[in-house]
Amino acid sequence: MKPSRLEFVVDFADCDPARIVYYPRYFEWFDRATERLFRERGLAWPELWAQYRLAGFPIVDAAAKFLGPSRFGDHIIIESWIGEWRNKLFQVQHRVINADQTVVEGHELRVWALRDPVNPEGMKAGPIPMEIRARFEE
Amino acid sequence: MKPSRLEFVVDFADCDPARIVYYPRYFEWFDRATERLFRERGLAWPELWAQYRLAGFPIVDAAAKFLGPSRFGDHIIIESWIGEWRNKLFQVQHRVINADQTVVEGHELRVWALRDPVNPEGMKAGPIPMEIRARFEE
Amino acid sequence: MKPSRLEFVVDFADCDPARIVYYPRYFEWFDRATERLFRERGLAWPELWAQYRLAGFPIVDAAAKFLGPSRFGDHIIIESWIGEWRNKLFQVQHRVINADQTVVEGHELRVWALRDPVNPEGMKAGPIPMEIRARFEE
Amino acid sequence: MKPSRLEFVVDFADCDPARIVYYPRYFEWFDRATERLFRERGLAWPELWAQYRLAGFPIVDAAAKFLGPSRFGDHIIIESWIGEWRNKLFQVQHRVINADQTVVEGHELRVWALRDPVNPEGMKAGPIPMEIRARFEE
Repeated sequence: MKPSRLEFVVDFADCDPARIVYYPRYFEWFDRATERLFRERGLAWPELWAQYRLAGFPIVDAAAKFLGPSRFGDHIIIESWIGEWRNKLFQVQHRVINADQTVVEGHELRVWALRDPVNPEGMKAGPIPMEIRARFEE
Repeated sequence: MKPSRLEFVVDFADCDPARIVYYPRYFEWFDRATERLFRERGLAWPELWAQYRLAGFPIVDAAAKFLGPSRFGDHIIIESWIGEWRNKLFQVQHRVINADQTVVEGHELRVWALRDPVNPEGMKAGPIPMEIRARFEE
Repeated sequence: MKPSRLEFVVDFADCDPARIVYYPRYFEWFDRATERLFRERGLAWPELWAQYRLAGFPIVDAAAKFLGPSRFGDHIIIESWIGEWRNKLFQVQHRVINADQTVVEGHELRVWALRDPVNPEGMKAGPIPMEIRARFEE
Repeated sequence: MKPSRLEFVVDFADCDPARIVYYPRYFEWFDRATERLFRERGLAWPELWAQYRLAGFPIVDAAAKFLGPSRFGDHIIIESWIGEWRNKLFQVQHRVINADQTVVEGHELRVWALRDPVNPEGMKAGPIPMEIRARFEE
């Protein structure tokens, strides 16, 4: 599949006293990039979650390797794609590019989490519908 | 070494629309827990960084496994300790405990990053002084 | 009423590239301090909101005056109290103290917002029960 | 002057357990919108601050009125403009528009803060150069 691309300038708001991107911010960017990946395929989360009775896509596993810093004012591209579909889980891959260099590589393993019909606070993993996967293979 | 312990209640501010802790927040907690781990050993970062001409402790690698959610109002303990010292790197281990269960396990691999004397925006890895390591072995 | 006090050290995580507290963070602290103000009076939000069918306490108005900066490593106290009760609104006052000086003064005007029984996404202002106000006057 | 416009969709990442935008996030948006306002006029902060020996534009006063909520998935426009120039201060006005309604109105009063040549951690207000003001009147 063609990666989704999110382009932006690193704001003051993204940086820490070392004047580089505060590292937990990359995981927030991964989360936003994943949401955008779905939205670009016509699967905006609020409507998707209502339609499929989803509680969301909670994380099982997240990791990143930081190959170089990004600084206040740098132009960034985040490329994101589904790396793997499993029955009830999917992995999203992210690559952060700064000045033509990959500076961060990461992934998120997420659950297709259905709302528990009995307990409104509960959720449980469900099988990912084939028509959803198909939207990412177009 | 005895882990540093950070105890608190999960605030509204920490949670997402699924009413669980927003996952990038765990990495922010790891960062705060690492800072506290140093502070408790008399190595508060502002003074330490000034003394050793450090730019900070940037991340090379960070990862977490999420074994269960934490909800708005839950009582949380984060246990943090140095898992490994290398010449210019150190790994911090974190365990998040909720109601006596480990709900998140993670780590950060960090650089002992000296300020570049020539370029004020630059930094480079330096050897970790033995007296610093000793403070964590007491 | 006696103010609620929240004491902590300004972490690296709280600061911006100017090495002072990133200003929106103060409003996050106000929100956390308000939650604590209720919690200390036995009114933890998750249970309180379930009991009174509340959607939350959304903000109508928030403001702060910044009289001086707070830096990475500073010891901070936030004093918070209810400044005014109205029929369906309440105002929370916050004072941030750093080295015996008031460095930030702010307030939040919040709604006692009931869940709309028809529309699960909706909310509407309701009268604040007298027994709630009484808990803050003890 | 013509306002700067920042358009985006409210992400999951922006919302709180009440499924509306977490209110301190609006102040983060104001900060980002102010940075963009300068960037669009050729005054990107990293270069501008280096050139004029600025420590930044710290806040003296910030406030917002919240006229209605914004929800997960809503399309938002933030209009931002300089409301007033004073000798050493400037006020930025922000209006958040959701579905053709103004939902938030706010402002920030900011200092033109020069780095203290003696104390690297210090800063002091300086007069705003006329050529800067001129860039916003074009």
